[in-house]
Amino acid sequence: MSEMPNNVRAAIYRIMVEYTHAVDTLAGADAALANFTDDAVIDFSAVGFPKMDGTEEIRDFYASLSENMTHNFHRVTNPRPVSWDGKVGVMEAYVIGMGQSKAGDGILVHVKYRMEAEETADGWKCRYLAVSPMMPPAS
Amino acid sequence: MSEMPNNVRAAIYRIMVEYTHAVDTLAGADAALANFTDDAVIDFSAVGFPKMDGTEEIRDFYASLSENMTHNFHRVTNPRPVSWDGKVGVMEAYVIGMGQSKAGDGILVHVKYRMEAEETADGWKCRYLAVSPMMPPAS
Amino acid sequence: MSEMPNNVRAAIYRIMVEYTHAVDTLAGADAALANFTDDAVIDFSAVGFPKMDGTEEIRDFYASLSENMTHNFHRVTNPRPVSWDGKVGVMEAYVIGMGQSKAGDGILVHVKYRMEAEETADGWKCRYLAVSPMMPPAS
Repeated sequence: MSEMPNNVRAAIYRIMVEYTHAVDTLAGADAALANFTDDAVIDFSAVGFPKMDGTEEIRDFYASLSENMTHNFHRVTNPRPVSWDGKVGVMEAYVIGMGQSKAGDGILVHVKYRMEAEETADGWKCRYLAVSPMMPPAS
Repeated sequence: MSEMPNNVRAAIYRIMVEYTHAVDTLAGADAALANFTDDAVIDFSAVGFPKMDGTEEIRDFYASLSENMTHNFHRVTNPRPVSWDGKVGVMEAYVIGMGQSKAGDGILVHVKYRMEAEETADGWKCRYLAVSPMMPPAS
Repeated sequence: MSEMPNNVRAAIYRIMVEYTHAVDTLAGADAALANFTDDAVIDFSAVGFPKMDGTEEIRDFYASLSENMTHNFHRVTNPRPVSWDGKVGVMEAYVIGMGQSKAGDGILVHVKYRMEAEETADGWKCRYLAVSPMMPPAS
């Protein structure tokens, strides 16, 4: 396993920023999906949200999110290269995610992202994203 | 519109960090102003603070801030290149700004910065800074 | 005093991320220590925690931390190069540190890190880390 090159680090960090920006501007499912491969898996089950397998399930989730939320705010810090095998880069980062639903409910999660990404003909894309909680749910 | 070069991204991010550091250390108006062109515009009106046009108005604002606040803390995350025309770079970032006034009032804003910057004879400077709220005021 | 090279900035930032990751995953004293020189000093006295001088005292502190805490979460933002003399790089950053103890106590600090680091035969290491508070304790 070699050191992750700077351009790979920058590319994966950029996916994280672009993806959270798409979510936080309620830009709709396509804007979120633009950051993922067609067969991407997103696993939010560790914090009580769905696990999604592939474009269709991911689209449904973000379409629903854009419809039900009034605000989202995901701040990405502590990017940390985990591995690079010459094709797939794995990077972690800390994320505090806040949200406010139309129904008036607030969301607050303190998590670590694990993102696996690779370069495609259409640029760098995420093929796997999972979260793990870093603080107790109530904090 | 071409891709923003790495050195431009780094330069604009650095302005954001130096500017918030000047504000957060209550270093006074000149330290804040050092990050802006003479004809810079700062528009904080979207979160209930002034819109300032040029050095004089910006100086008054930060002189007053340094006088009235005991603490400031602005954390910059999610830097996101927006555009680069070969001269002006536009970058967004998320900022949580906290403050405490001598009168005992607390301030908390969750915003997105939009910063336009260019290289001058005296280094990279911000010529336009605006904020847009990302969460409801009370959160 | 010359401009800090990009690779030095990246190296010191990486120590910050790896160190906080070791602390936040409760990975134990050795994982934390891997980021410091043998004669490193860590001074947390400005926020009511110990000042530690050298490996033994640092090890005791992080062994105790791993034993007593259930959660830690330290988010690093606003990395800011301060100086570079060709051997030692000094960088500041903002950190919000959260924690939860087994006894049920919560910790929350808003601080600025000052980290001095140098390249050793075993990679870049921190030789001095101190914090200064950025917000009043209660906020």
